[in-house]
Amino acid sequence: MPEFLRLTPPAEALRRWLDAFPATPPVARERVPTESALDRVLAETVTAPHALPSFPRSNVDGYALRAEDTFGASASLPAYLRVVGEVPMGGAADRPVGPGEAFLVHTGGMIPEGASAVVMLEDTQPIPPSEVEVYRAAASGQNVIRAGEDVQPGEVLLEAGIRLRPQELGGLLALGLTTVEVFARPRVAILSTGDEVVPPQAQPRPGQVRDINSYTLAAVVTRAGGEPRLYGIIPDRKESLEDTARRAHAENDLVVVTAGSSASARDMSAGVLAGLGTPGVLVHGLSIKPGKPTILGVAGKVPLVGLPGNPVSALVIAWLTVVPAVRRLGGAKPEAPAGRIRARLTANIPSETGREDYVPVRLAATPDGWSADPVFGKSNLIFSLVRADGLVHIPADATGLSAGSLVDVERF
Amino acid sequence: MPEFLRLTPPAEALRRWLDAFPATPPVARERVPTESALDRVLAETVTAPHALPSFPRSNVDGYALRAEDTFGASASLPAYLRVVGEVPMGGAADRPVGPGEAFLVHTGGMIPEGASAVVMLEDTQPIPPSEVEVYRAAASGQNVIRAGEDVQPGEVLLEAGIRLRPQELGGLLALGLTTVEVFARPRVAILSTGDEVVPPQAQPRPGQVRDINSYTLAAVVTRAGGEPRLYGIIPDRKESLEDTARRAHAENDLVVVTAGSSASARDMSAGVLAGLGTPGVLVHGLSIKPGKPTILGVAGKVPLVGLPGNPVSALVIAWLTVVPAVRRLGGAKPEAPAGRIRARLTANIPSETGREDYVPVRLAATPDGWSADPVFGKSNLIFSLVRADGLVHIPADATGLSAGSLVDVERF
Repeated sequence: MPEFLRLTPPAEALRRWLDAFPATPPVARERVPTESALDRVLAETVTAPHALPSFPRSNVDGYALRAEDTFGASASLPAYLRVVGEVPMGGAADRPVGPGEAFLVHTGGMIPEGASAVVMLEDTQPIPPSEVEVYRAAASGQNVIRAGEDVQPGEVLLEAGIRLRPQELGGLLALGLTTVEVFARPRVAILSTGDEVVPPQAQPRPGQVRDINSYTLAAVVTRAGGEPRLYGIIPDRKESLEDTARRAHAENDLVVVTAGSSASARDMSAGVLAGLGTPGVLVHGLSIKPGKPTILGVAGKVPLVGLPGNPVSALVIAWLTVVPAVRRLGGAKPEAPAGRIRARLTANIPSETGREDYVPVRLAATPDGWSADPVFGKSNLIFSLVRADGLVHIPADATGLSAGSLVDVERF
Repeated sequence: MPEFLRLTPPAEALRRWLDAFPATPPVARERVPTESALDRVLAETVTAPHALPSFPRSNVDGYALRAEDTFGASASLPAYLRVVGEVPMGGAADRPVGPGEAFLVHTGGMIPEGASAVVMLEDTQPIPPSEVEVYRAAASGQNVIRAGEDVQPGEVLLEAGIRLRPQELGGLLALGLTTVEVFARPRVAILSTGDEVVPPQAQPRPGQVRDINSYTLAAVVTRAGGEPRLYGIIPDRKESLEDTARRAHAENDLVVVTAGSSASARDMSAGVLAGLGTPGVLVHGLSIKPGKPTILGVAGKVPLVGLPGNPVSALVIAWLTVVPAVRRLGGAKPEAPAGRIRARLTANIPSETGREDYVPVRLAATPDGWSADPVFGKSNLIFSLVRADGLVHIPADATGLSAGSLVDVERF
């Protein structure tokens, strides 16, 4: 009657179990409005239908002009240009910029044909009615965001398996992609067993306890991106558990059973799970506390978990096994953990004292821990955030950060 | 026309702004089913209606008996007891345990009256038909979970302002508390401005761009626990923005405006926000990149945010300002950040080699960083997880961790 389990180290058990999962996500794909797709897992590869920006834009408020017309300009020897119009926001200039001419343009406004640079307002002085003094020479392309600088037509932007964050929704919508194909949430059956267990709304008699596991596990499944489906409280009779487990197995992508707490009830759960199909029970017993009597198995294409009946063990083991299983079944690729991550910078980041900087970085796993690769880009390029995993904060008193230094990356 | 802003350091700006918020959360309270309350913010103080467990329970499979009857027992000199019954799961023993008697009891089963300890099956040998040899002396209380060991009647269990995690739902349901009072999600108006901005489903003409900010900000608000309410795209005309901003101000707990990207459009936004009420604009300009032209204000009881129009600045500044604002307005108390946290252990944690341990700990902020206080408790006490902020992992090759050592706490 005492339980003799062959205990497996948790990491090895998890690897062996996940390796027996179906090779492709078993869940359906569905097309949903992009604006409702937050935290869903992308099921398609997204390529850019057109360039972003789709026209050259000014990065500042200033004058669009031909860079060569400002050659040698300085405060003591300004260049003089004719102001021939103002580019309306949301529209195009009514004519090209010719030699010696300038157009007033606002941040985000379209660069007129013929212009090659924008001089900031701060470096100019208007001379009414229609001239402007320019105090600084402009290089070609200065303060101009080129068409396609963020995204090129046909470029692969997002891969299947990523979890959609606010910036991915923004990037998709910027390209007019108002629907997106995502994986359906994996359906996760939750069965609570035990003759002593009654529903939460019941008044327990002596010896009875209210069901906790159905609800804590449902919450864990929800947070992991799954759809919990409660199969109720099943008494400690083999036929009852078999009937419900078979039904749950036929209707779901993952079956989670919390065993009754006695050794005989646990043995019964193991027997029932083993009978659901091949390969059956892969692991029975983990070298872990709490949670030693955990069962991991696969029946056909459906993974199975037998959790200990006591609520703390059930919850801890669910974090370690059910969460990665739900993510995998839902098509999600592994991602760096949430929160703050210590990483080593791969490049220098310049900064000015007196100003705090938040610089997007891309994380990569290396043999020596995480590396953080700065994603530089003009600040209105939404895909610079799509390409990043988090932000590095540079405090006001720093003049920058050197390549090789350790930084805290705040994941987003 | 160039913009001259008095730049405020971000932390100071945020503090000054949050200090001007209404002292109590402005949102309504609502009673919801506990099983649907995941990640909601608790609006009431919860005290225990009864003890947990409500009856003394066995922590193992074994024999319930009077501890004194095992005095001096050993493998070479066992104690002999009469087995007078088996405690049914979910019920009580049919008679008390007398001197020289024992009841078979399963893990989680009710301890019969008269019994003071449980001897594990592994330390016994049944002698059919009705005797048992006991090879080990039991101390009084051994393997018994006392009634009230997890929770005492009337004990304050949860304070208003916490975000409900899976374990809190479990703890509430264990006590039969099937509904719970939570704060309503704060309503957050989102206004996108700019003559160049068109809806995502539109085909932009030259000079036009699709709206990104409405949707990225809605996603940020949703993740922070708020209810985003989109007020559409408003052209850069003062009267239009004024009308919509007044309506948004009357209907919401927070108003977020993304300014048009030109300096004049930004100035217009600042003017409109300033006109919504007192104290008005508190901060205009942050010493930060990206996001310098940020506006923070309060009109009456409603906080206001003016975000830069470009999508990256808008998103970064929303993470820094809108997220803490939504949490505060929704009644949430500040909490430790998500993910992995480095903390210093306040007590020794024993462990066995060859087994991995996961130990719940409570985090506290100290002048030297975070401290982690182990929450010891028998593993079926759900409130040991309610009292904890995360888990410390002890690898299989360690014999324990010493007080004062640095550990990684995985937040749950």
